[in-house]
Amino acid sequence: MNIIKDSTPTADGFRMPAEYEPHAGCIMIFPERPDSWQYGGYAARKAFVQVAEAIAASEKLTVCASARQYDNARALLSSRIRVVEMSSDDAWARDYCPTFVRNGKGEVRGIDWGFNAWGGLYDGLYFPWDNDNRMARKICDLMDKDVYDKRDFILEGGSIHVDGEGTCMTTESCLLSKGRNPQMSREQIESVLMQYLGVSRVLWLPCGIYHDETNGHVDNICAFVRPGEVALAWTEDEEDAQYEMSRACLEYLNSARDAKGRRITVHKLPLPKPVTVTKEECEGLDACWDEPTRTAGERLAASYVNFYISNGNIVMPKFGDPADDKARDILQGLFPHRKVVQIYARDILIGGGNIHCITQQVPR
Amino acid sequence: MNIIKDSTPTADGFRMPAEYEPHAGCIMIFPERPDSWQYGGYAARKAFVQVAEAIAASEKLTVCASARQYDNARALLSSRIRVVEMSSDDAWARDYCPTFVRNGKGEVRGIDWGFNAWGGLYDGLYFPWDNDNRMARKICDLMDKDVYDKRDFILEGGSIHVDGEGTCMTTESCLLSKGRNPQMSREQIESVLMQYLGVSRVLWLPCGIYHDETNGHVDNICAFVRPGEVALAWTEDEEDAQYEMSRACLEYLNSARDAKGRRITVHKLPLPKPVTVTKEECEGLDACWDEPTRTAGERLAASYVNFYISNGNIVMPKFGDPADDKARDILQGLFPHRKVVQIYARDILIGGGNIHCITQQVPR
Repeated sequence: MNIIKDSTPTADGFRMPAEYEPHAGCIMIFPERPDSWQYGGYAARKAFVQVAEAIAASEKLTVCASARQYDNARALLSSRIRVVEMSSDDAWARDYCPTFVRNGKGEVRGIDWGFNAWGGLYDGLYFPWDNDNRMARKICDLMDKDVYDKRDFILEGGSIHVDGEGTCMTTESCLLSKGRNPQMSREQIESVLMQYLGVSRVLWLPCGIYHDETNGHVDNICAFVRPGEVALAWTEDEEDAQYEMSRACLEYLNSARDAKGRRITVHKLPLPKPVTVTKEECEGLDACWDEPTRTAGERLAASYVNFYISNGNIVMPKFGDPADDKARDILQGLFPHRKVVQIYARDILIGGGNIHCITQQVPR
Repeated sequence: MNIIKDSTPTADGFRMPAEYEPHAGCIMIFPERPDSWQYGGYAARKAFVQVAEAIAASEKLTVCASARQYDNARALLSSRIRVVEMSSDDAWARDYCPTFVRNGKGEVRGIDWGFNAWGGLYDGLYFPWDNDNRMARKICDLMDKDVYDKRDFILEGGSIHVDGEGTCMTTESCLLSKGRNPQMSREQIESVLMQYLGVSRVLWLPCGIYHDETNGHVDNICAFVRPGEVALAWTEDEEDAQYEMSRACLEYLNSARDAKGRRITVHKLPLPKPVTVTKEECEGLDACWDEPTRTAGERLAASYVNFYISNGNIVMPKFGDPADDKARDILQGLFPHRKVVQIYARDILIGGGNIHCITQQVPR
C-alpha cells in the first residue's frame, strides 16, 4: 500500500463511482460498544448479521471484528462472508472505512479522510476515536489498494452521495458544522470534494433528518437512485419538526441543476412515524464517560432513505410502521433490476444510524 | 472460508508442496512479547524487518501485527509489504500459521493443526496460547482459503519438512513427545501426516539441535534442499553434546529411503560455535509468570539450517561466527538459482528460534 500525499484523485484521473455502479464487494464492522448498542450488542449483532447476509447474497462481504468478537462473528456469519480482525471504536463502516475511487483502467484507490467522531471535542459523540480513524488505511492495506492521505480534512462517508456523473450531494448542517473543518469556507470545502471525488458540482441540501446526531448526514435524508433522480425522506405532517426540513431540501432540489445541467427529479419516500427510544432500551445502554448516551423518549432519526445498494439487492430498513410497505414498494419501483430486502432495523437505529451507515462499498 | 471436518487433504487430492516450489507469498508475525524478545522487542523487530524485506524482494509478504504494534509495523516496513491486524501470543508464524496444501488444479487450502505452545501444560513454553491457536483459521479466512480442521492433533509447522515428492521428515523427540499427542502411537501419528500432507513415507530423525526448547524441531537441524537431498546441521567437535545428535541423524539418513525409494544425499552444514545468552540479555527479558525465560550462560539452539527459501532468495541467519561464510557458501552452492541473503539473527535466536521459524510460505 502506497500512501499518496502529493496528488489528488481527480488530478490522477480517479472518481468516486455511484453506489449503483458495480461493486467488487462491501465492508462492515461487527458491533460491540455497550454505550452504543443495548444490552452489550446482542440485538444489534443479530440485525447486523441479517444485513450482512442480505449483502453477501450478491457481493463479497468482509466483516471487521475486534479480537474480542472475532470468534463470535465467525460463528454467527456464514462461510461466504470473510471475517478479519480489526480494531475500531464503533461499527460505522460508512463513516470511517475508505471512500473508494476508480480510474478509467479500473484501478481502485482509497481516500483516508480525517475522522473525529462526528464533531470532535466540539460536539462529537465519543472520545477517543483513534481506532476508527486508523481504519481507512488498514482497510486499504488489507485490500492492497493505494490510499490518498486526506486526514487533515474531516469527512464521514455518510455525509456525501455522488451520482457517478460529476455531482456530489451533501448537507450544509454537516459539512459546514463547527466540529469538522471550521477554518475552511464553503468554497474551500467544495474544492476539496471536487479534488477528491472527481466531481464538478456540489449540491448543498440545507439539512438532514431531525435530531440526527451526525449534524444531518445526507445519507439519512436523500440518496441518488440514478443520475438526475433522488429519493427524499418526506412527511406530510406539518406539525412535525421534520416537515420544514424536508420541504427546505425539496425546494433546494427543485431549483438545482446537477453537473450535467439536468434538473433533479425528486421521489418522495415517506418517513415512519416518529420513533422514540424507550426507558427499557435506555437501561440497556452503558454510560459514555459520565453521561447516558440516550434518554427515554428521545427521538431517533429513523428514515427509509438509509438503504444500501448491493449488486443484486436494495437492503433497506423497516420499523414495524405502517409506512414500511409503502416505502418498500416505492424503492422497488425505483430499482426494478434489484430485489428490495427489508430488515427490521430498530436495533441498528438505537445505535444512531441505519443500514447505509454500517456499510461501505468497494467498486469493481 | 469453509471449515472442512469430514475429509482430509490427501483424500481430496491435496498435498503440501516443498518450500522450494513456487510461492504466492509468505506470512510473518511482528514480535512484541517482552518475555521472548529482549528490551521490549526493539532489536528483534529490527531483525524481523530485515528478514521481511529480504523475503518481500521476491514474493508478496503479509505481516500480522497486534493492534498495539500495527502503526509501528506499518512505519517500519516498506509499502510493498502488507500489514494486517491480528492478535497472537508470540511471533512464530511457522508453528501456528496454516500449513498450506495444493491440488493438481492449483487450488490451495490450509490445515489448522492444534497448537499448545510446544508441549502444553506438560512442557510448553508459555500459557495461554489461545491467540496463537486461532491464527491458522484467521489467516485462511483472510486469504479466502478453505481450511481443514485438525485441531485435535497437536503439530507445529517447524516440526515437519516435505520434499514435494511424497516424503515428510520429522523428529522422534518432537512428534513422540509427551506434551503433544501422547495418546497416539508412532504409527497413528505417521498416519495423520500421510492423510494431511499427501505423503507416503515419513522419515523419523531421532532428534534435533541440542537444547532446542521445541523438543527438537526438524527445521532447525535438517532441511530438504531438493528431492533426495538434505542439509544437516553438523559439528566436528566430538566434545560437543550436539556431536552425537547430528551423528545419529546422519546414520538414520544414510540408512533411509525416501518415498520414491531413493537414498538420501546428505550435505553437512557446519554449526556455529555454541552460542550462549548473556547476563545483560537476560536482564532485558521480562519474567513469564514467576519465572525467568532465560538464564545467563544458557545455550541457544543456533543453526544455519533454519533458513527460509523464498521465490528468489535463501534468507539465512548469521551469528558473527567464523562459520558464517562457509555455511553461506555451502547453501549458495546447493541453491544456484537463488541468491543467499544472510541476516544477523542473534536477536531472533534469543527468542528461541530463527528465520525459518518466523515465516510460513503460501504456495502459488
